[in-house]
Amino acid sequence: MTDTLRLGIAGLGTVGTGVVKIVQRHAELLSRRCGRPIAITAISARSRDKDRGVNLRHYAWEDDPVVLARRPDVDVFVELMGGADGPAKAATEAAIAAGKHVVTANKAMLAHHGQALAEAAEAAGVNLRFEAAVAGGIPVVKALTEGLAGNAVTRVMGVMNGTCNYILTRMDDAGLTYEEAFAEADGLGYVEADPELDVGGIDAGHKLALLASIAFGTRVSFDDMKLEGIGKVSIDDIRRAGDLGYKIKLLGVAQMTGRGLEQRMTPCLVPSASPLGQLVGGTNMVVIEGDAVEQIVLRGPGAGEGPTASAVMGDVCDIVRGMKLPVFGQPAETLAPAPPANAESPACFYLRLELVDKPGALAKVATVLGENGISIDRMRQYDHPGAHAPVLIVTHKTARPNLDAALSALPGTGVLTGAPVALRIEEV
Amino acid sequence: MTDTLRLGIAGLGTVGTGVVKIVQRHAELLSRRCGRPIAITAISARSRDKDRGVNLRHYAWEDDPVVLARRPDVDVFVELMGGADGPAKAATEAAIAAGKHVVTANKAMLAHHGQALAEAAEAAGVNLRFEAAVAGGIPVVKALTEGLAGNAVTRVMGVMNGTCNYILTRMDDAGLTYEEAFAEADGLGYVEADPELDVGGIDAGHKLALLASIAFGTRVSFDDMKLEGIGKVSIDDIRRAGDLGYKIKLLGVAQMTGRGLEQRMTPCLVPSASPLGQLVGGTNMVVIEGDAVEQIVLRGPGAGEGPTASAVMGDVCDIVRGMKLPVFGQPAETLAPAPPANAESPACFYLRLELVDKPGALAKVATVLGENGISIDRMRQYDHPGAHAPVLIVTHKTARPNLDAALSALPGTGVLTGAPVALRIEEV
Repeated sequence: MTDTLRLGIAGLGTVGTGVVKIVQRHAELLSRRCGRPIAITAISARSRDKDRGVNLRHYAWEDDPVVLARRPDVDVFVELMGGADGPAKAATEAAIAAGKHVVTANKAMLAHHGQALAEAAEAAGVNLRFEAAVAGGIPVVKALTEGLAGNAVTRVMGVMNGTCNYILTRMDDAGLTYEEAFAEADGLGYVEADPELDVGGIDAGHKLALLASIAFGTRVSFDDMKLEGIGKVSIDDIRRAGDLGYKIKLLGVAQMTGRGLEQRMTPCLVPSASPLGQLVGGTNMVVIEGDAVEQIVLRGPGAGEGPTASAVMGDVCDIVRGMKLPVFGQPAETLAPAPPANAESPACFYLRLELVDKPGALAKVATVLGENGISIDRMRQYDHPGAHAPVLIVTHKTARPNLDAALSALPGTGVLTGAPVALRIEEV
Repeated sequence: MTDTLRLGIAGLGTVGTGVVKIVQRHAELLSRRCGRPIAITAISARSRDKDRGVNLRHYAWEDDPVVLARRPDVDVFVELMGGADGPAKAATEAAIAAGKHVVTANKAMLAHHGQALAEAAEAAGVNLRFEAAVAGGIPVVKALTEGLAGNAVTRVMGVMNGTCNYILTRMDDAGLTYEEAFAEADGLGYVEADPELDVGGIDAGHKLALLASIAFGTRVSFDDMKLEGIGKVSIDDIRRAGDLGYKIKLLGVAQMTGRGLEQRMTPCLVPSASPLGQLVGGTNMVVIEGDAVEQIVLRGPGAGEGPTASAVMGDVCDIVRGMKLPVFGQPAETLAPAPPANAESPACFYLRLELVDKPGALAKVATVLGENGISIDRMRQYDHPGAHAPVLIVTHKTARPNLDAALSALPGTGVLTGAPVALRIEEV
């Protein structure tokens, strides 16, 4: 058991460099913990000459990650290039075909090709592990797949895009508009080259789709996820929600209901005093609910060199220690197709309406809500200098179709001066 | 791989009953996730006839847990009896000697005999797993041993006794005295038969000792832990600390310092806005800090049938899935003796003094602090109807010996009307 486990790393950006640093810094510690030394034998990246602040001289270089993945002196292929398709997928497939274990941080690849890759890996008898793909340094894939394996999971929730949470926090703390907070985050290098990946909820949606697969034993079905970014969240709503005791978060929710699998990544209100409500800045949080464990909350850095490399190394250590697990916690062939829920589960909703300041305006709104079976829990009308009266409504639990019908009917009352805003209040 | 994994369960209290329920309820789910069915073959408990609300008829009964542990039809011995010695230890040793894996929730047994049991288990080539022994349903042993295996852990902190946190929360929320809050917790059945296990910090200290061993690669050394219960925490201190922006928690802290391994389970102040400060009621929280991952926070129910049984089943599933790990994350024989730190690391301290209401009293206190190298960060004197002036002091970072010297010298000033209170402020 003193054979060295040999890593081939493709991709030497922030995370790849972090992995190199850990392997170099902790050689003795890793060997003691894993029972075998871990060494890097070969690397591949876009630029061979870039100074990454680490000594790479002793590693073989490959221009082509596919060639790297097949090298006979590589036992575990560490894929840190990113991208749903292209070289990442080609190299991952090559590694699996060559009988190598794969550790990846690539949520997009797994959200789109998880089923096929899992089937291939399991057929080849190799591990395909992806702790670093979800919520950075938080060992949430492990907690869900292993630690909570005795539970029927009832719901998974998460704030899993640090950039969005940073923007929403800055709007709240500093009173910035969405555009100002976005510009600030961008200036700090927090925003992806394609901003929609962050603020459109796509990146966080990829992560949620992977957790949902493990939680409910279903095939990854990112295409069925309801995605709504934070671009329409206004500073007004953040303030009004705050008055009512809520924070607005880009919240992912996956739950299996009688109507099928519900997967949403949308701006939601959560109680300010809840762990999710208290989460500020770029930190991530995942909440797992199971029939035995009740509720577990995991919090930590969702990105960054050290935390993401920590997650990669956790997977590597599991492989060195001989662990073997199906990719999504049960054999891929037994994962059920995930019938998407045809409607999201009932909830209380936050409504913000701007009404003309005329007698009877509010009565007309209340009538439309009543006609659609929506009852009002709380209502608040604000002082208003002009002719528009801002009105906030928190509904009792309401079926989404009823809400949508009411939202369609409201403009017909002629008393609204703008489009109504409706946000789900998630019970947490 | 369709051989059934057979459990023998010793102890059918809350947790044992919870394990039976999960195995019965989730037979299909567990089999799908683990690749093999899991079944209970034999049980043992104090009373055979007690109605536990579950059907036990199909399981063989043993009066003696040692006999149960040796049964040829048991693959995994599940020890849920408790107690550091006696039947729990005898049966665990018997199981290991008979080549059975062991899953236990017994923190006292491992805190006192962890090294010997780990050596025996590893020599026998069996697993000895104890997720349920630490922080109930939170998969923290797994997170620390496996998920964060790429990190040099720098500090582990935790609120790991729900009873203490419940008492402190009720003192804070409802303004109860310690005695009143204790009586309330006792009435709810939250307090152990020997209350010192809870309020004396012993139970939480056992848990911290186990985490410290994994975190720092040291032998479990519970006897070297600094233990201080919550019995001396007064409602005054809770209120004053609140005024200053802190909560008082029974906080476990383990860290490796230049002076050796520091292990403390003591009442500490933590910022009210931190995750630890926001933790209320019986919920547990563990904070792990590592050189790569920065900080991970895990939160969940620290006790109860479902959560603790969830942790037991997580361990059972790992064993069914073929995982094999050293008990404390590296071979027991490589665990280093833990040289206890001869002094705790420097910290800011909260001091509460009751002074005679005479000119120069405060000057005398300040002089003593200054003479002992303690500088004052903040000071607050409260209105006082009588002749005693309550004074609060927050010090700058201070070495504990200096603090102790000052505390010894203060009564000599003749201006104190009671014993000074000093509580550590932990940076979190």
